[in-house]
Amino acid sequence: MTRRPAEGRALSHVDASGAARMVDVSAKAETARTARAAGAIRMSGDALALVRENRVAKGDVLSVARIAGIMAAKRTSELVPLCHPLPLSSVVVDLQLDEALPGVRVEATVATTARTGVEMEALTAVSVALLTVYDMVKAVDRGMEIGPVMLLEKAGGAGGPWSRA
Amino acid sequence: MTRRPAEGRALSHVDASGAARMVDVSAKAETARTARAAGAIRMSGDALALVRENRVAKGDVLSVARIAGIMAAKRTSELVPLCHPLPLSSVVVDLQLDEALPGVRVEATVATTARTGVEMEALTAVSVALLTVYDMVKAVDRGMEIGPVMLLEKAGGAGGPWSRA
Amino acid sequence: MTRRPAEGRALSHVDASGAARMVDVSAKAETARTARAAGAIRMSGDALALVRENRVAKGDVLSVARIAGIMAAKRTSELVPLCHPLPLSSVVVDLQLDEALPGVRVEATVATTARTGVEMEALTAVSVALLTVYDMVKAVDRGMEIGPVMLLEKAGGAGGPWSRA
Amino acid sequence: MTRRPAEGRALSHVDASGAARMVDVSAKAETARTARAAGAIRMSGDALALVRENRVAKGDVLSVARIAGIMAAKRTSELVPLCHPLPLSSVVVDLQLDEALPGVRVEATVATTARTGVEMEALTAVSVALLTVYDMVKAVDRGMEIGPVMLLEKAGGAGGPWSRA
Amino acid sequence: MTRRPAEGRALSHVDASGAARMVDVSAKAETARTARAAGAIRMSGDALALVRENRVAKGDVLSVARIAGIMAAKRTSELVPLCHPLPLSSVVVDLQLDEALPGVRVEATVATTARTGVEMEALTAVSVALLTVYDMVKAVDRGMEIGPVMLLEKAGGAGGPWSRA
Amino acid sequence: MTRRPAEGRALSHVDASGAARMVDVSAKAETARTARAAGAIRMSGDALALVRENRVAKGDVLSVARIAGIMAAKRTSELVPLCHPLPLSSVVVDLQLDEALPGVRVEATVATTARTGVEMEALTAVSVALLTVYDMVKAVDRGMEIGPVMLLEKAGGAGGPWSRA
Repeated sequence: MTRRPAEGRALSHVDASGAARMVDVSAKAETARTARAAGAIRMSGDALALVRENRVAKGDVLSVARIAGIMAAKRTSELVPLCHPLPLSSVVVDLQLDEALPGVRVEATVATTARTGVEMEALTAVSVALLTVYDMVKAVDRGMEIGPVMLLEKAGGAGGPWSRA
Repeated sequence: MTRRPAEGRALSHVDASGAARMVDVSAKAETARTARAAGAIRMSGDALALVRENRVAKGDVLSVARIAGIMAAKRTSELVPLCHPLPLSSVVVDLQLDEALPGVRVEATVATTARTGVEMEALTAVSVALLTVYDMVKAVDRGMEIGPVMLLEKAGGAGGPWSRA
Repeated sequence: MTRRPAEGRALSHVDASGAARMVDVSAKAETARTARAAGAIRMSGDALALVRENRVAKGDVLSVARIAGIMAAKRTSELVPLCHPLPLSSVVVDLQLDEALPGVRVEATVATTARTGVEMEALTAVSVALLTVYDMVKAVDRGMEIGPVMLLEKAGGAGGPWSRA
Repeated sequence: MTRRPAEGRALSHVDASGAARMVDVSAKAETARTARAAGAIRMSGDALALVRENRVAKGDVLSVARIAGIMAAKRTSELVPLCHPLPLSSVVVDLQLDEALPGVRVEATVATTARTGVEMEALTAVSVALLTVYDMVKAVDRGMEIGPVMLLEKAGGAGGPWSRA
Repeated sequence: MTRRPAEGRALSHVDASGAARMVDVSAKAETARTARAAGAIRMSGDALALVRENRVAKGDVLSVARIAGIMAAKRTSELVPLCHPLPLSSVVVDLQLDEALPGVRVEATVATTARTGVEMEALTAVSVALLTVYDMVKAVDRGMEIGPVMLLEKAGGAGGPWSRA
Repeated sequence: MTRRPAEGRALSHVDASGAARMVDVSAKAETARTARAAGAIRMSGDALALVRENRVAKGDVLSVARIAGIMAAKRTSELVPLCHPLPLSSVVVDLQLDEALPGVRVEATVATTARTGVEMEALTAVSVALLTVYDMVKAVDRGMEIGPVMLLEKAGGAGGPWSRA
């Protein structure tokens, strides 16, 4: 059965006629805002062993993915059509090997002082870091799976804090 | 227990000293190549109902995500540090609502005639299309999960075809 | 006959020696500013009929052009050499079929809180939206004409409001 | 009265379901292709006098606009969503003062060896060169009008040559 | 002999574990900041004579390099991975022929009101202006040398002013 | 005394009227081409000691600079106005600490199969890698000097090989 959307709710990025729009944040206050997102890529044990070995040597797979994530966060508004261009005051991208997965886990935290939040910047950083791991490992394992990528928490702004239950 | 990488295997994007590098494809033949990738975003039934309703009206959520995916495929080499810049001859991004998920499914197919493949372009198109859906729906559901994003198949090039088992 | 420029007037983007420069806005106040621009593309009646039919179906020609306009507004400072990079708080791009033209009319409204105005962002959004319509329709009509593209009004900043007579 | 589109014609950038797509050019031959486009910006006689005077001094307004046009041609596929990224072998942008208009005329010629044409690159070069003139002159004349921008001719490719009647 | 780093000093762009990070400037005040950088390119006397002659005619070599420097300053955060994206309020790039070098000297001054400084923007403007001179002159002299490129002074921010001794 | 340019020589990137242009390479053959460039950054012994220590730990300063250089090579045609956009088949960026300088040395080698060479790509990779080292080390030494940056050799194309004497 098909559920009806909740009473009075509407997609913020679509106007009354159904057309896409950038949400107008002119009237919002410029406040400190942060967002934290996480994601993972699952790979074969053999592939993970190669990444681990590389890290012992020089750490380049994880280093490259971290840099890619940081740089992607800064370009979020070029990729996601209705995102606002924002000055970012901090982007941290952390990658960890996870033997149990097996694979790599990524977490990104982004901060700004602006009229809108940085959830998309954090999610973009995670997604591009994971794509970069895929790129560097794909010659040994094309079957890797990226995800789940999700928001962990956000803070700042009129909407108040949110965190994943 | 920690597995050792398979004998004689190595990460193609890392040189003997462990440093990151772009793989040299100078000696490869310029051949027709395609790649197909897929992904999904899971959301609440309420959020999906809003997307479905919007599609009936004008289809903008899915339209915007499709355009974002196509445009992102063209910029893959700017995002993924060791990817080669390639001319693309075709990018198709298809989005479908999935009531059972509930959520949206994305599939991208990319083609080129070049010295290297377009797996990363297809995966990037899928990832950015899903990020765009997240962006447009996040005001009604911040808990959405992106993934799994994966390669379905590739063809062309010396390595021969590959498809997900 | 060649008119002399008005007494005491000079091009703001050129210094005393005639060299191009970005205008220094350091001393200006950060205030709310908006700009609205419009433009049109004239095409054959047959071409317009195809666009109209497409709109009835899914609206993609106009949707794609709207997204292209919004995204281009955000990249104005990369395209127009002496424009300042600005955070934008709102970009709205509206497209309408005009049977009398015949063709498509575009209007863009951009808002920011910054030290300089957003006229160029509004004009860039209109221009790229029109280029996108041209691209999607060109296989049926290469003779289309883009223009006139013009500023309709601006508000905010020390210069005060301006509107087309 | 509303005309019906010509029998059997369809928008190449829209698939059977009405969704936007990049045209698949995989099967097309890589051939030499050129396109030439033109446009103009109309301004007050006073504004034109300032541009003319600047040209006598150092030529920066026209120089900056020419560079902006050349650089924009190279980024066409980032701006126009369904354009193919192409290697360009030549971009020429020429600007002339036109006392009779009064204003500035721009002509751009682009060449490539590729699977698709460069009409959009030529039109984008013209449009961005004109936007740049607008930007540099706007402090003395906000009422300037950009257009008409149009394709003059194209050559190369299976479709054969086309030129404006 | 290998010196040990000074007591208590550390690289600001590397965290305690040695991983790269963007410095968090959230807690810094938004203040007016400027930076001035300089650089040079040394070429043969014959090459310089061609540049000088071109300048007399229309000044395009220096004009193009100036525009390239201004535009590059605006894209610094896309090029230098750990730089913050900043709104810039002014970018001035000045080029001078230097017969004694022989070659071209470049100086760039950048201003912003932001939470971090614009040294990298000034240095990037200088570097890209010099690369552009190299590009335009390389057909007559491939042996040109770029450098030294250095910061001349900075002002604003908690760190106080700095200028080259 | 001012030398006159050599008989019959002219700047390839400037037309007969002195205006800037992209060189037309349509008639050139698509051949394998490579270029190798080098550069250095000189810093205090203390600053170098910090970079060396970081390398022992995780190597991030050099890793980040290498990635920045590789990514910049791919964007050369966006930065240097008259460069042709090219597909690159290989970019290698190597960084070495030099105790004697003291500082860091960078070498970049770029390869393509195209109608024009990749000298600018190699020089851009070196320049941006050096800017990135500056950025990461500037908090401990603002007086660092970048340069000389120079072409070491090029091969391929009608002009034949060239190497620094």
